[in-house]
Amino acid sequence: MMTFPPVSEQLLHIQRGTDEIIPKEELISKLEASRASGRPLVVKLGCDPSRPDLHLGHAVVLRKLRQFQDLGHRAVLIVGDFTGMIGDASGRSKMRPALSLEETRQNGASYFEQASKVLNKERTRIVYNSEWLGAMSFGDVVRLAMKTTVARMLNRDDFATRYAQDEPIGLHELLYPLAQAQDSVAIEADIELGGTDQKFNLLMGRAIQKAAGQSPQVCITLPILEGLDGKEKMSKSLDNYIGIAEAPEDMYGKVLSIPDSLIYRYFELATDTDTHDLPSLKRQSAAQPRDTKHHLAAVITRMYHGRAAARRAQEHFERTVIRKEVPDDIPSHRPELTDGSEIGLLTLLTQAGLTASNGEARRLVVQGAVSLDGERVANSRLVIDLADRAPFVVRAGKRRFARIVW
Amino acid sequence: MMTFPPVSEQLLHIQRGTDEIIPKEELISKLEASRASGRPLVVKLGCDPSRPDLHLGHAVVLRKLRQFQDLGHRAVLIVGDFTGMIGDASGRSKMRPALSLEETRQNGASYFEQASKVLNKERTRIVYNSEWLGAMSFGDVVRLAMKTTVARMLNRDDFATRYAQDEPIGLHELLYPLAQAQDSVAIEADIELGGTDQKFNLLMGRAIQKAAGQSPQVCITLPILEGLDGKEKMSKSLDNYIGIAEAPEDMYGKVLSIPDSLIYRYFELATDTDTHDLPSLKRQSAAQPRDTKHHLAAVITRMYHGRAAARRAQEHFERTVIRKEVPDDIPSHRPELTDGSEIGLLTLLTQAGLTASNGEARRLVVQGAVSLDGERVANSRLVIDLADRAPFVVRAGKRRFARIVW
Repeated sequence: MMTFPPVSEQLLHIQRGTDEIIPKEELISKLEASRASGRPLVVKLGCDPSRPDLHLGHAVVLRKLRQFQDLGHRAVLIVGDFTGMIGDASGRSKMRPALSLEETRQNGASYFEQASKVLNKERTRIVYNSEWLGAMSFGDVVRLAMKTTVARMLNRDDFATRYAQDEPIGLHELLYPLAQAQDSVAIEADIELGGTDQKFNLLMGRAIQKAAGQSPQVCITLPILEGLDGKEKMSKSLDNYIGIAEAPEDMYGKVLSIPDSLIYRYFELATDTDTHDLPSLKRQSAAQPRDTKHHLAAVITRMYHGRAAARRAQEHFERTVIRKEVPDDIPSHRPELTDGSEIGLLTLLTQAGLTASNGEARRLVVQGAVSLDGERVANSRLVIDLADRAPFVVRAGKRRFARIVW
Repeated sequence: MMTFPPVSEQLLHIQRGTDEIIPKEELISKLEASRASGRPLVVKLGCDPSRPDLHLGHAVVLRKLRQFQDLGHRAVLIVGDFTGMIGDASGRSKMRPALSLEETRQNGASYFEQASKVLNKERTRIVYNSEWLGAMSFGDVVRLAMKTTVARMLNRDDFATRYAQDEPIGLHELLYPLAQAQDSVAIEADIELGGTDQKFNLLMGRAIQKAAGQSPQVCITLPILEGLDGKEKMSKSLDNYIGIAEAPEDMYGKVLSIPDSLIYRYFELATDTDTHDLPSLKRQSAAQPRDTKHHLAAVITRMYHGRAAARRAQEHFERTVIRKEVPDDIPSHRPELTDGSEIGLLTLLTQAGLTASNGEARRLVVQGAVSLDGERVANSRLVIDLADRAPFVVRAGKRRFARIVW
């Protein structure tokens, strides 16, 4: 019999970064029952094998699934090969060419391989929904369709908009949410995860499970992650994405390009940082955005490529980006610390020999002539926590540089 | 190779009493091609085996099908057992309890037996749509559903009304018209018949055949026959119907109870009267409604029960209905005819000894004291054509009766 952390502890992790938990009371009951019986919960995530390259946006729900795995629950990844094999002969969607069984399986395997960078591979069950949906007859479909109404279907945001605007909705499109709901019945899901845009489909799963006499799944929605621009949803077509298979250097650099306002959100949604550490990361993101962003870049790169690659990416970034304006041979300085890992900016400048005194250092900061890794510093009272960041280059005036290492 | 009547002759019969032929040009092309190649057209009629008792309202489309048979074409009667076997678990329709295969077949056989009173049994093919619909997979259904849109479905009158009034429409209800359309593909229908309320479904058959690469069927709709009240659609639940399995006496009596305004409509839609005779029947219905209605009752009773039973029904009607107010033993009179089968009312009264002179007879008519089969006669110049009617009872004043026979 498995043992699970206390429900309140589990809730802390599960609630992290979620948009909605519907309904939360049922989640609590399910967690309590699971803990009492030692039976892990079945957590469902559907994936679309027609999109071969995963990015951090996709990883948000995968991370949530991973958190459930870490708590001892069972992940079931559903590859939606059923619709993939059908394609869309209506010509209305170019997104869904019919795939052969082999192509579908290949896409599914590729998805799984990528997802495994986030998931605990050994504890993930991967299933193809053509297994049960492909076995359903017209009669089964009619019986399934009886369980919902047209009005309910057209209530889905995107359908409602298209219907109101007289844009054609293929009748088959109403069948896809039913198919996805039937997946929940087939695997007897306790919980289904999805982006906020999946809320309707997740709730449909609840309804169809109820109609099938099952205990209905709890629906957990996760926010849609903004891309590098900080505005639009992360997506390949907008080219504002960070692919999870991207090279460490590109990954590191791309993370640094996000707006400061997203730093904490990325920590919360896209990293494996301990949930208990989130409050202090929130404060740091606001107080020291530049350093915290480097920290974020390092964490994300480490998650997908390991610690060594992350360090190399960081160094690469310094070499190619920061040092662009920096002479080749600048002195290194290892700060003498008197207060843990922290050091005041003015002290550091003077220690490194870039200024004659803290007074001169303060004047230069006020003049806007001091920068860290190429970014101007305005606050002369800045205290730098070396534990939180990678080596960096400090500059005072036009020509005085030092590389700070520790 | 079969030979068919000229297309213009066929059209005369096919157009009789129809509401719409969509599109008429294609009907003409199909008839021309059929005549040129000697290939009979496949004429489809779907029937709902959940309604076991047929009435004259159902017979309207069956008669049209029979006309096609008489012209040499092939009738295919589709028993909609597929949906019957599914039932309606949504609880929204009490009309569709799930039926076993056996029940469905029994209902189908019963329908066929009743329909055979109208159809040429030997030239009717009866098929059960579960044969092909039951073999369809979820994937097949999705591919079928791709061929139409939600907006198009909700355009159907009854759906539009229910949707606008927030009455629930089960999602499965949108699948039934598709199923019916698929029937047309399965049997490669050239023509489908239905009531005006079936127009949408018939057109869906056209669309789905086109999408399947078939020559689309021509849709022929027939009016909904009014019941005995002359207002509402004939239906069992309104108790305004004439069942095709009803006893001859009941059938005869019920036909007599329709309003005069419906006499011609019944001739046109519900009898096997030669199409060429319709114009003269139209005139007679207006000029001599009472006699023409008896003629109609005799024709309809003869169609379903044969000539002898029709005559017995007529006699029964006289005995029980007309003679109610008539003494048991009244004299019979066989008129002496001088002018073919016609005789003037006044002459008849005097000949039969009910009046002393044509002058007395005229006065009684003007006083409203003369009746035929219980119905007051207002026109003293009335000429009765005995060839057109059954024996009848004539009455003059309170106590003078004669039974007119010939």
